[in-house]
Amino acid sequence: MIYITRRERFNAAHMLRNEKWSDDKNIEVFGKCANQNWHGHNFELFVTVKGEINANTGFVVNLKDLSSVIQEKVIEKLDHKNLNLDVDFMRGKMASTEVLAIAIWEELESDINQLGSKLHLVKVQETENNFVEYFGK
Amino acid sequence: MIYITRRERFNAAHMLRNEKWSDDKNIEVFGKCANQNWHGHNFELFVTVKGEINANTGFVVNLKDLSSVIQEKVIEKLDHKNLNLDVDFMRGKMASTEVLAIAIWEELESDINQLGSKLHLVKVQETENNFVEYFGK
Amino acid sequence: MIYITRRERFNAAHMLRNEKWSDDKNIEVFGKCANQNWHGHNFELFVTVKGEINANTGFVVNLKDLSSVIQEKVIEKLDHKNLNLDVDFMRGKMASTEVLAIAIWEELESDINQLGSKLHLVKVQETENNFVEYFGK
Amino acid sequence: MIYITRRERFNAAHMLRNEKWSDDKNIEVFGKCANQNWHGHNFELFVTVKGEINANTGFVVNLKDLSSVIQEKVIEKLDHKNLNLDVDFMRGKMASTEVLAIAIWEELESDINQLGSKLHLVKVQETENNFVEYFGK
Amino acid sequence: MIYITRRERFNAAHMLRNEKWSDDKNIEVFGKCANQNWHGHNFELFVTVKGEINANTGFVVNLKDLSSVIQEKVIEKLDHKNLNLDVDFMRGKMASTEVLAIAIWEELESDINQLGSKLHLVKVQETENNFVEYFGK
Amino acid sequence: MIYITRRERFNAAHMLRNEKWSDDKNIEVFGKCANQNWHGHNFELFVTVKGEINANTGFVVNLKDLSSVIQEKVIEKLDHKNLNLDVDFMRGKMASTEVLAIAIWEELESDINQLGSKLHLVKVQETENNFVEYFGK
Repeated sequence: MIYITRRERFNAAHMLRNEKWSDDKNIEVFGKCANQNWHGHNFELFVTVKGEINANTGFVVNLKDLSSVIQEKVIEKLDHKNLNLDVDFMRGKMASTEVLAIAIWEELESDINQLGSKLHLVKVQETENNFVEYFGK
Repeated sequence: MIYITRRERFNAAHMLRNEKWSDDKNIEVFGKCANQNWHGHNFELFVTVKGEINANTGFVVNLKDLSSVIQEKVIEKLDHKNLNLDVDFMRGKMASTEVLAIAIWEELESDINQLGSKLHLVKVQETENNFVEYFGK
Repeated sequence: MIYITRRERFNAAHMLRNEKWSDDKNIEVFGKCANQNWHGHNFELFVTVKGEINANTGFVVNLKDLSSVIQEKVIEKLDHKNLNLDVDFMRGKMASTEVLAIAIWEELESDINQLGSKLHLVKVQETENNFVEYFGK
Repeated sequence: MIYITRRERFNAAHMLRNEKWSDDKNIEVFGKCANQNWHGHNFELFVTVKGEINANTGFVVNLKDLSSVIQEKVIEKLDHKNLNLDVDFMRGKMASTEVLAIAIWEELESDINQLGSKLHLVKVQETENNFVEYFGK
Repeated sequence: MIYITRRERFNAAHMLRNEKWSDDKNIEVFGKCANQNWHGHNFELFVTVKGEINANTGFVVNLKDLSSVIQEKVIEKLDHKNLNLDVDFMRGKMASTEVLAIAIWEELESDINQLGSKLHLVKVQETENNFVEYFGK
Repeated sequence: MIYITRRERFNAAHMLRNEKWSDDKNIEVFGKCANQNWHGHNFELFVTVKGEINANTGFVVNLKDLSSVIQEKVIEKLDHKNLNLDVDFMRGKMASTEVLAIAIWEELESDINQLGSKLHLVKVQETENNFVEYFGK
């Protein structure tokens, strides 16, 4: 068993806000992340898959294929978008990094498994000071 | 003469859009940066000042003071904000990195000169792949 | 279960020295790290916690709270300090990165668990070429 | 149990090519990595070992010793070399990052275990966008 | 006048060798960079252009256009190539970073000037420890 | 004319203190950098030289020679040392990054000029948030 990781990037706007709460409560909990005019980040996405090495290629998975899946299933929907407004798989969800990481896992899992490897980890880095990791259920 | 640089960071949303143009023209020129639901970045700001060394301190400028000026004059207005909507010194301007760098220079110049040094360079890094540098007029 | 990591930084002096050994023996084992006039590093501290997502916030833990705990319990005691002389929780211990990582874990564990998440990993990066990871007992 | 990681670097040329395949098939699978005139990378190697802390040193392993083993057993054979042509422990193997990571593990394992620690992870970073991790069988 | 920089990357093989010299002399001068089986690097290319801001776009130059020129004129010829064997504009030249930087400048200059800006700096980073800068004649 | 830069690193302790001032005044001006038990940093030193390209080598200067000069003249004296106590060329000086950069320039200048190139810039990076640049008198 060996693990390979591909990094992709997306630049997006978002806001942290619980619609059931007052503005004051949102600011109390989310601070400046609750700004209703949005803010944004250069997100980095690290997708780790695991599997056995194919003797003909030396690969667990062809990174060209892995990159294509990530681009098509998530980056095209996230890059230069608003996480709260534009992204089908985030509709009705909190736009936190934690929730985003799980949503990305769910978008990627079946397509990656069809490449012959197995999704192991979705890591989303929001700033140089924080990142989230999700290994599936 | 010696140069010292302080890095500060801000996370902001923006959109590239010329209001005099049609939506199609905006998309043609600005591509996905024209998304009307905004996108965003982790911006890095590097402020370089120059001067002679103070013999008592070994400093061109006390970085505590330089950082305070940058925080108060620009970071508090930019961080977790929308560059097109929230920032007084960007009102009515294109929210490009070039225009932003010049606007930051104008905000900082007199306060930095009052610290006894001279503003030399404002550098704004928008992504790992592009940055803008402004040395004043 | 999802994991979130917060990075904090501290700049500190230290020396590697076993008081039971001669100077020669200390230099033989610790090399230039045994310099009795001290040397220092820009340390990076990565604290990873794990837990379930709170449906109201989308958070495992509010990073504001996590950062406050780390600042108060360890960074204020470590930043711009001497690890051998100034730090109560390092008293009488070897000032190696390994020992430091465990000591930081012990300082943080109960306070972090009170935030409703669980401490998973303390990582201390000493230079670009080496880091230590401690996952608890 | 605590984990310590040492980073070393090597700059090498390689080519991805299955000699049993036609040129066309090689290009179809490996793309520009199949260029028969070679290409190359600045590889980063991260070696993680685990063990208990020695009370006399505060170390799991002396990084001087760990670095010496890595240098002698793998870096001297890989740095400024051609992975397909010059490296004894890669002879007859695909020069993929996955295969390289496993080969490095096998070169390092017994010598590292003789240092009193245990090899835990070999990570090879090929570009800023991809890396491989191998934890042994 | 304002400056904007675009980073592009290419992974290439090369060798440092003066064909007029003996093997011994080549090894004496170029060390392990003279390995006749090649070695390679992840090169980073930073292209800085300068100009006035276009009032309609807020841009000195559209980065899409700048990136296209760099891709077409140099990256496609350099990426996953051998600098000594594959690159038309390096034919008959030493494959040093200095010579490469000047050759890239010459490839880019007229096309970049046609974008309405002016080429200011070509910077080529070969490893994390060295880079070359060329500002033209 | 072309510019080449070599990065070297050193880990050192220091303290900011004006012996003519009271402890209170030192703390007022230098804050936690005045801690009399020292603190420290991972310093990065970037040395830029300029010159014409040697047609036989493709080099402005052989980086092996440049690195040797930097190691011998400054790194060996700075690495794992105390800037206030251990370094002959810092004796009696403020241990600020500005003063250090100038002192490094003076140590390097004549030796680098003997390599056939000309010292252009000494840059000292103290933390990820600040660095100093000195271009000579």
